[in-house]
Amino acid sequence: MHARFYAPEAREVGSEIALPEDEAQHLSRVLRLGPGDPLAVFNGDGDEFGAVVAAISKARITVRLVSRATAQDELSIALTLAQAVLKGDKMDDVVRDAVMLGIATVQPLVTARSEVTLAALTRGARRERWHRIAVSSAKQCGRALVPAIAPPIMFDGPTSLAHLPAPLFILVEPGALERPGSVADVSDTAPAAATLVVGPEGGWDAAELARCASHVHPLGLGALTLRADAAAIVATAALLTRWKLL
Amino acid sequence: MHARFYAPEAREVGSEIALPEDEAQHLSRVLRLGPGDPLAVFNGDGDEFGAVVAAISKARITVRLVSRATAQDELSIALTLAQAVLKGDKMDDVVRDAVMLGIATVQPLVTARSEVTLAALTRGARRERWHRIAVSSAKQCGRALVPAIAPPIMFDGPTSLAHLPAPLFILVEPGALERPGSVADVSDTAPAAATLVVGPEGGWDAAELARCASHVHPLGLGALTLRADAAAIVATAALLTRWKLL
Repeated sequence: MHARFYAPEAREVGSEIALPEDEAQHLSRVLRLGPGDPLAVFNGDGDEFGAVVAAISKARITVRLVSRATAQDELSIALTLAQAVLKGDKMDDVVRDAVMLGIATVQPLVTARSEVTLAALTRGARRERWHRIAVSSAKQCGRALVPAIAPPIMFDGPTSLAHLPAPLFILVEPGALERPGSVADVSDTAPAAATLVVGPEGGWDAAELARCASHVHPLGLGALTLRADAAAIVATAALLTRWKLL
Repeated sequence: MHARFYAPEAREVGSEIALPEDEAQHLSRVLRLGPGDPLAVFNGDGDEFGAVVAAISKARITVRLVSRATAQDELSIALTLAQAVLKGDKMDDVVRDAVMLGIATVQPLVTARSEVTLAALTRGARRERWHRIAVSSAKQCGRALVPAIAPPIMFDGPTSLAHLPAPLFILVEPGALERPGSVADVSDTAPAAATLVVGPEGGWDAAELARCASHVHPLGLGALTLRADAAAIVATAALLTRWKLL
């Protein structure tokens, strides 16, 4: 199998396109490919191509798209992960895992117990960073589609979630609610779209949960306390299994 | 809720026991508890106690067990994770996650494509390290039982797996087999025990898979390539969901 590169400009067989700078570096410095060498290319919008290196100069590397290839099938459900931003680089891991499991969109949230502000996320160019991580994960897991990273938003009740695809499931930690549903209570017919809402390290504020109670389905995952950065991958795997998509 | 400590000697209410050294350090240096302060104690065999600090000296810290507490329920299935040892500290993460998901036993494997030998694992005291990680994960997720870390073994066909509880499921990467079963093909009635076998970074050698074909159920998890250190957590979550245990 040929090495696989992300080239968002790839659209038409026969065209010659430039690789993004970090992809170009990987091609020439790490893999040491040269003109004429074959490679695989995906554009992040779901298209996959066979290609060859066309030209290498100091300034840029161009590749020629020689054939359309079969892209990896996407899940039949458009699943959005609305994830409270976690501390340090834990959010990076969540984004990486979400892409690997076939999530369609990541919606970063700032919640009552988040230890970060929207301003700090913007200043730190975190969204751009998460996009790069999504690209890298798509390369590794074989997806031709790079999930969208939506601009981070404040989670302040149901209105802030109104734009997210229903049904919405909100993951709650053990003991946070009297009787959250379990994944076995979720209909086993996969919806066309859905949203999974996952909280930060400190869990949800009781007022937060109460405010959105009528708009989201609370979902518990057994009695054990999951690490905050593992909650999304476990809940996603559970829902996909319930819907026979894994 | 009181801070929670691992004390393998804790057996009988009324007795006074010493804490292991690292737990003692955590109690006195990090949490700065003193004589009379309340704490929670679990022994790793499934028992949970209320306790108070009895005495603190330079050499050791003793606690008095004052009441038996309700331990976290364990899963109704004794699930063994037979995991090929991964590179670097990735195996640490697998052990941590397995404990968090309720696994009963971890059986480290050295496989055809493993980049480590049994001798190196012994020399590096890796089993002791994984035990410490299991303790730490049990503390965090609330389990009173610390899963056993079995001595690493060579995976060389069905005989090497004969001691592991049946049914055995072997996770196979996309494309490794013509038609592996999916988790939806697994009976939805939870067995009393089972084993999940997960391979190393390079996946299974074809001969390895062929040799154990009659003894294990091959299990695929969708079309995407999972990171080696995420495979066990995803497969465990999927099986527990299938069995309505999550």
